[in-house]
Amino acid sequence: MAINYPNGKSYNPQKNNSENRTKKDYSFSNRGKTLEDEINETNEYYLQRSTAVIHKKPVPIQVVKVEYPSRSAAVIKEAYYRTASTTDFNGVWNGIHLDFEAKETKNKTSFPLKNIHAHQIDHMRLVTEQKGVSFLIVRFSEINKYFILPFPALMTAWDEMIKGGRKSIPFEYFEEHAYEIVPGAFPPIDYLKGVTKMLSEEPVK
Amino acid sequence: MAINYPNGKSYNPQKNNSENRTKKDYSFSNRGKTLEDEINETNEYYLQRSTAVIHKKPVPIQVVKVEYPSRSAAVIKEAYYRTASTTDFNGVWNGIHLDFEAKETKNKTSFPLKNIHAHQIDHMRLVTEQKGVSFLIVRFSEINKYFILPFPALMTAWDEMIKGGRKSIPFEYFEEHAYEIVPGAFPPIDYLKGVTKMLSEEPVK
Repeated sequence: MAINYPNGKSYNPQKNNSENRTKKDYSFSNRGKTLEDEINETNEYYLQRSTAVIHKKPVPIQVVKVEYPSRSAAVIKEAYYRTASTTDFNGVWNGIHLDFEAKETKNKTSFPLKNIHAHQIDHMRLVTEQKGVSFLIVRFSEINKYFILPFPALMTAWDEMIKGGRKSIPFEYFEEHAYEIVPGAFPPIDYLKGVTKMLSEEPVK
Repeated sequence: MAINYPNGKSYNPQKNNSENRTKKDYSFSNRGKTLEDEINETNEYYLQRSTAVIHKKPVPIQVVKVEYPSRSAAVIKEAYYRTASTTDFNGVWNGIHLDFEAKETKNKTSFPLKNIHAHQIDHMRLVTEQKGVSFLIVRFSEINKYFILPFPALMTAWDEMIKGGRKSIPFEYFEEHAYEIVPGAFPPIDYLKGVTKMLSEEPVK
């Protein structure tokens, strides 16, 4: 079934090759960019304008075997992806330490909490205790909606799940507790606008 | 020739296999730990005590080929080390964004600036402009001396090199412009003590 987007374009989902880990989950409405691409481009935009210095951390990889061909660069011949112990992005913005995770979902009515790991929640809690600003950026890809969910609101939903509550955060919870980011062309998602609004309502103690 | 250390132990340098990138440069006087090991242990110590949340960033690796054996984890079969575009460590400490690089040298009289890349200097400058606190931790391994060199002092030495000046920072420059860290057993190098002293004399604007 074709889905109609507000911009009038239609989208026909294709069969996803789940075995190919390098293949990215492209969403037509965002011109083929993943959320990570959009944030990286936005960070580059901030960097060029001296607005903020925020980078994605490299994916942690456990290297097992390396070969050293003569006169060539070292070649890693066996390695494995490791689970990240922190969040994907961090940096500094006018004296404020920012630390966040970014996730996209195809769900239209809720964000599944299985996308977040317990150690990431622990990390975000520790960052908040150190007076850093931690949050989650969520893209609801199918409806092209973006939100900044402050860590305290994420923590509340997480704690409820731990106590046997629901395993996903309803879309309405985002409308109530998160800050919407309106996507644009350049930068793709000006999330610091949302963070500014968040800090005006929930200042760092 | 054997070198005598202040602790009375002697050290016989062995031929270094420079082709083996995974082999680490162990210094006997530090019980086989690299500076990176010491900082990682110190960061773990800070984390356990809720003092600060500081992590080493993963080494950036360009993955070229991945295989997916059935019922097993993905295996990276071809990958290459990439040059890091930022520094090795960052995090947050009581509202302060910290960002630093750590380097050890076997030189006893100076620190060779070839250990630092131009893009790292650029990154540290940008972090400083955003009111983050940036510095370099240097270990003079052969004499077991540790220093925190504030970014402005590093920048001054770097700029002089660019203008045709010397390609290394003399030990005396560290004695004058850096903050010494006295190594210990637990944590191995309590560098936040040095940062505290640095900030009391050179507060963030």
